[in-house]
Amino acid sequence: MYRPKVLVIGSGGVGTISALSLSHNFKSEVTLVVRSDYDLIMEKGYSIVSCTYGELIGWKPSHLAPSVNDAMEKFGPFDYILVTTKNVPDGPVTCEEIIAPAISTGKEVIILLQNGIDIEKPMLEKFPGHLILSGVSHIGSTYYHGHVENKGMEIVFLGDFQKPSSNPESRLKIEEFISIYHNPGFNKVQVDEDVQKTRWEKLMYNSVFNTISALVDLDVNSIQINNANDELIRPAMQEIMNIARSVGVECDPTFVEKFIHIGDGLFYSPSMCVDMRKKQLMEVEVILGNPIRIAKEQNVYTPILSVVYSLLKMVQFRLKQDRKMFTINQDDFRGNSDHYPYIFENKYKNIK
Amino acid sequence: MYRPKVLVIGSGGVGTISALSLSHNFKSEVTLVVRSDYDLIMEKGYSIVSCTYGELIGWKPSHLAPSVNDAMEKFGPFDYILVTTKNVPDGPVTCEEIIAPAISTGKEVIILLQNGIDIEKPMLEKFPGHLILSGVSHIGSTYYHGHVENKGMEIVFLGDFQKPSSNPESRLKIEEFISIYHNPGFNKVQVDEDVQKTRWEKLMYNSVFNTISALVDLDVNSIQINNANDELIRPAMQEIMNIARSVGVECDPTFVEKFIHIGDGLFYSPSMCVDMRKKQLMEVEVILGNPIRIAKEQNVYTPILSVVYSLLKMVQFRLKQDRKMFTINQDDFRGNSDHYPYIFENKYKNIK
Repeated sequence: MYRPKVLVIGSGGVGTISALSLSHNFKSEVTLVVRSDYDLIMEKGYSIVSCTYGELIGWKPSHLAPSVNDAMEKFGPFDYILVTTKNVPDGPVTCEEIIAPAISTGKEVIILLQNGIDIEKPMLEKFPGHLILSGVSHIGSTYYHGHVENKGMEIVFLGDFQKPSSNPESRLKIEEFISIYHNPGFNKVQVDEDVQKTRWEKLMYNSVFNTISALVDLDVNSIQINNANDELIRPAMQEIMNIARSVGVECDPTFVEKFIHIGDGLFYSPSMCVDMRKKQLMEVEVILGNPIRIAKEQNVYTPILSVVYSLLKMVQFRLKQDRKMFTINQDDFRGNSDHYPYIFENKYKNIK
Repeated sequence: MYRPKVLVIGSGGVGTISALSLSHNFKSEVTLVVRSDYDLIMEKGYSIVSCTYGELIGWKPSHLAPSVNDAMEKFGPFDYILVTTKNVPDGPVTCEEIIAPAISTGKEVIILLQNGIDIEKPMLEKFPGHLILSGVSHIGSTYYHGHVENKGMEIVFLGDFQKPSSNPESRLKIEEFISIYHNPGFNKVQVDEDVQKTRWEKLMYNSVFNTISALVDLDVNSIQINNANDELIRPAMQEIMNIARSVGVECDPTFVEKFIHIGDGLFYSPSMCVDMRKKQLMEVEVILGNPIRIAKEQNVYTPILSVVYSLLKMVQFRLKQDRKMFTINQDDFRGNSDHYPYIFENKYKNIK
């Protein structure tokens, strides 16, 4: 039987369960790139507690590799490259750079199982002619040091970023990938007929709650206890809907109230806030920077999100500084320095 | 010789130097309330390194007291009550409550040497008929555990909140206080002929740099390195000027560029940011809340500062929670709880 070869990049809560879903039915040959904890996973495998797959101890997919280069050399070339990493284009390495070593035949289908808008554009620019698919995942799954806790059933929407597709093979590949990924009763996978709408609607949550939560270091319920719904949350979600409309996407407005109450009582802190607390870079550009750039191009007024973006970029700057991605030489700024009381000199000069 | 009795409340960097300035010329009898570190200061006094008063070891004013009550019993009543504490009306205790035990004769002059706008209003309401004066201090001075480091010469603007003054004694009291406070060559003290203008102009800095610095946890130069001047700083300062104008105060527009470059090369973190880092409550209401409330009353549009205020209130909420001023019973919020995937049920129900 023909078994497509799938490279899964990113071995966090999402990527590990993706590798498990693909491995479960033996319809594909799975290589998982484990960039951190490789030695640990090689030796002991994963311990997984999943609401659908049950308890697994010492689980491994067919192949493990410490890097995409290594995966390519030993187990490539691949039919599918499933990217589940965080997408931080302003970070030390872009997703395009990460997957580059796995591109050889020109036939690889690249699936971006990631958040954000416009994430396919740099990918298409770097790998023109490749079929690039959109994956949107809804799953409660966390990874820590070899252990995966998967509390919510995995649900994936898979589709072509282009509508109508510019690639004649698109439909076939989507159906093939769903056939190797879907495990009835264990996960749900559905063709996404309108990828952009799916992504903009998810941004109604992520661009608003994720970002504000990271800025104020509070879970989503504490944000709401502060009466932020009327001041910030609802109008900011409306701004996302307005940006989406400017590029021809009509979001379902009932998502506003659904998203506001989605976490009632859970006191849940979204990924961007968790990243900030761990001093890891946040997905600020794909979740908020790209929407803001579209808003500017389309002359959509975004008074709240523009301020949130300006502030969040500064938090990202601080995280980069903490991670030693750069250091500021304070002496560079001393040339035009004036000490504190200087500016009051006009007031001071007549003082007795 | 008649020596007015002055009660100084608040023994941080500002209050300690105030007590020193008053003590230096022996023209008043100074009682300093030291609420924290009282035992330390009683035993060892202050060690002070001042750019004008020099190095002092074991310095104490005439009287020390651990509380306003104690000060009143032993050394009161007072002619002047100089309030140098932080002003946090949403904190555990208001400034009105702090000074209440020192009010007895009805003749006490209350001087608020504090930041912010509208701070005299709750004071006037609580102590009607009292003369309440405005002090605006420019001083580089920090207190830590008995030690005071005073790097910038103390400059104080003293005036009546009311213009023209509703109190006939106002001018006399201002001049008397300046005469007991001023030490030529050591500090500068000037009559403030337009208190509201002085305060609004200081807010052009504090409402913008202080607040943003606290939100993003960066010093003022790092904020500017992020190109925030055009996106946030200048338009936010303009919003403060617009609010001031709506209540008849014309700020000097040249302060915009002066304030932007006031800290060039110093990488200085303003008080609100320092408070946030120390997990102490911030002066968010007197520095930003009161201006925003005036803007709402006067229908002044403040798109940036309104967002900054909504966010900063949430940071204050977090600080209050950290300080156990309240605790959230999460069970109170579970009644209408829906777990994470609930809201996607419309999408899910047709999934295979």
